[in-house]
Amino acid sequence: MMGGSEFIEKILAGDTRSVARAISKVEDGAEDAASLMKEIFPRTGRALVIGITGAPGAGKSTLVDKLALHYRSRQERVGIIAVDPSSPFTGGAILGDRIRMQTLGLDSGVFIRSMATRGNLGGLARATVDAVAILDAAGFDKVIVETVGVGQDEVEIVKTADVSVVVLVPGMGDDIQAIKAGIMEIGDCFVINKADRDGVLRTEKELEALLSLATRPDGWHPPIVKTIATDNKGIEDLSAAIESYREFQQTAATSLERREAIARWRILELLRERLLAQTLNRDSASDKLNRLAAEVAAKSRDPYSAVEEIMK
Amino acid sequence: MMGGSEFIEKILAGDTRSVARAISKVEDGAEDAASLMKEIFPRTGRALVIGITGAPGAGKSTLVDKLALHYRSRQERVGIIAVDPSSPFTGGAILGDRIRMQTLGLDSGVFIRSMATRGNLGGLARATVDAVAILDAAGFDKVIVETVGVGQDEVEIVKTADVSVVVLVPGMGDDIQAIKAGIMEIGDCFVINKADRDGVLRTEKELEALLSLATRPDGWHPPIVKTIATDNKGIEDLSAAIESYREFQQTAATSLERREAIARWRILELLRERLLAQTLNRDSASDKLNRLAAEVAAKSRDPYSAVEEIMK
Repeated sequence: MMGGSEFIEKILAGDTRSVARAISKVEDGAEDAASLMKEIFPRTGRALVIGITGAPGAGKSTLVDKLALHYRSRQERVGIIAVDPSSPFTGGAILGDRIRMQTLGLDSGVFIRSMATRGNLGGLARATVDAVAILDAAGFDKVIVETVGVGQDEVEIVKTADVSVVVLVPGMGDDIQAIKAGIMEIGDCFVINKADRDGVLRTEKELEALLSLATRPDGWHPPIVKTIATDNKGIEDLSAAIESYREFQQTAATSLERREAIARWRILELLRERLLAQTLNRDSASDKLNRLAAEVAAKSRDPYSAVEEIMK
Repeated sequence: MMGGSEFIEKILAGDTRSVARAISKVEDGAEDAASLMKEIFPRTGRALVIGITGAPGAGKSTLVDKLALHYRSRQERVGIIAVDPSSPFTGGAILGDRIRMQTLGLDSGVFIRSMATRGNLGGLARATVDAVAILDAAGFDKVIVETVGVGQDEVEIVKTADVSVVVLVPGMGDDIQAIKAGIMEIGDCFVINKADRDGVLRTEKELEALLSLATRPDGWHPPIVKTIATDNKGIEDLSAAIESYREFQQTAATSLERREAIARWRILELLRERLLAQTLNRDSASDKLNRLAAEVAAKSRDPYSAVEEIMK
């Protein structure tokens, strides 16, 4: 018990190694992760959590790095969590980490962590929000969650942020209408990055048109910011846009609704994971699963009756 | 019972309306979905299931449409399932459907269906593989599953296909290394679409270099096909590449392993969904969830102890 509370104290004091160890615990689903998070959770709520998403190739990583440097110039401590679910087995996330460490890694006011999926037991989204809570409790002023891709989990993760930023680039081609329709509801703030490219005006007009079609329940009109992240251009505008939504949200009538929706999602994510773990931890569950998987693969059994047998 | 078996007969005969109704049932998690799938599952295994993924803007939809037309010219029946998890609430998927119906929709040998997420109870991946099974049992020769994005669920869905195709475009920018590292393991076949654009050779060289770094467990060397889908160029090469992997796979020693991994994933997906539904269907579970979500939002309770209370 003493060891536990000492560990918590170190996390709350912002000790980098303890923070990293705590994140590993929630990522691995360690046995003491639950008791850790019960201590951490009441200490959260001070950080501004910024979710950044968008299509691959939009330059999100560079944008995040430049935004982090901007906050550092204001003496704020910044935590960055890069979610990389597209790399189920190999070193995509690790590769990204190494590159970033060269720019930001020597600065003790910046904490960077990549999180990738851990096989098919899931839990990446839950682990990510837990990691955000740890950085929040550890006193980081800004926590940036960057997701590669526009999948379901990534959208959910970004929606749990205080402010969600969607990054586009000029001339994304065929799929842009469809993507925009999907992410319009997520973005509290839109960035058109690589704004020195051809087609920036057209993308801006299209985006404005799409945004004008939808009225958000909270009445917010998401700003559009143009950036050239590689040249450090537009970063202050982005910072101001993020701040303006943060201020708006604190007075919005829908703010409680949003927090409750996020809380519900967190509970369901964790519940799903726990129920599965409870079932699979039973005696001989693993043997049974292997046998049933072989039977389903051989088509001598269907997945539905396999699941019924496990739940029996 | 008679009604049920008549319904099954119609699905097996390829009746479009019955197929559409069956897919709605598995999508909605209807009560009779399990008994339906138990009948369907043993009738599957004839179709060639092709998974197509890649970044937004890569022109996947056009490529899929052209591939479908190619198969139609060989008198084959084609089912297309477009998974659009990026659009949690609005009409992204429906918009896509409408556009496509103009090209392919009047042809009774093509069945098109978009599937979007249904809120935070999940089940999209499970519903998608069930829909594929229905089309397979209904006698479609080719079933193409197209996913927008490179998220975790999308990767899982594509991995359940017989042949997985990853679509790239020249000059995708910063994130390409990371994406490639992630999707390299998924692609049985790679397409560089929009091959009339600048940078096609560089993208091809980079891709070749990356592919040469990794040895697949099955020993397969994924072919790279260049296409210009909008001009209908390279579609036959793609069809041949897909066929060549299908042939290889049927003799590969790792083929059973792959089928068992897919079966295991299907069982776990369904189990996760069923366990959650069972728990939430209990008396007063919904009231309890609402109360706990409000408490977590107010930070008077942490998500972990909320879940413990639900599981009690």
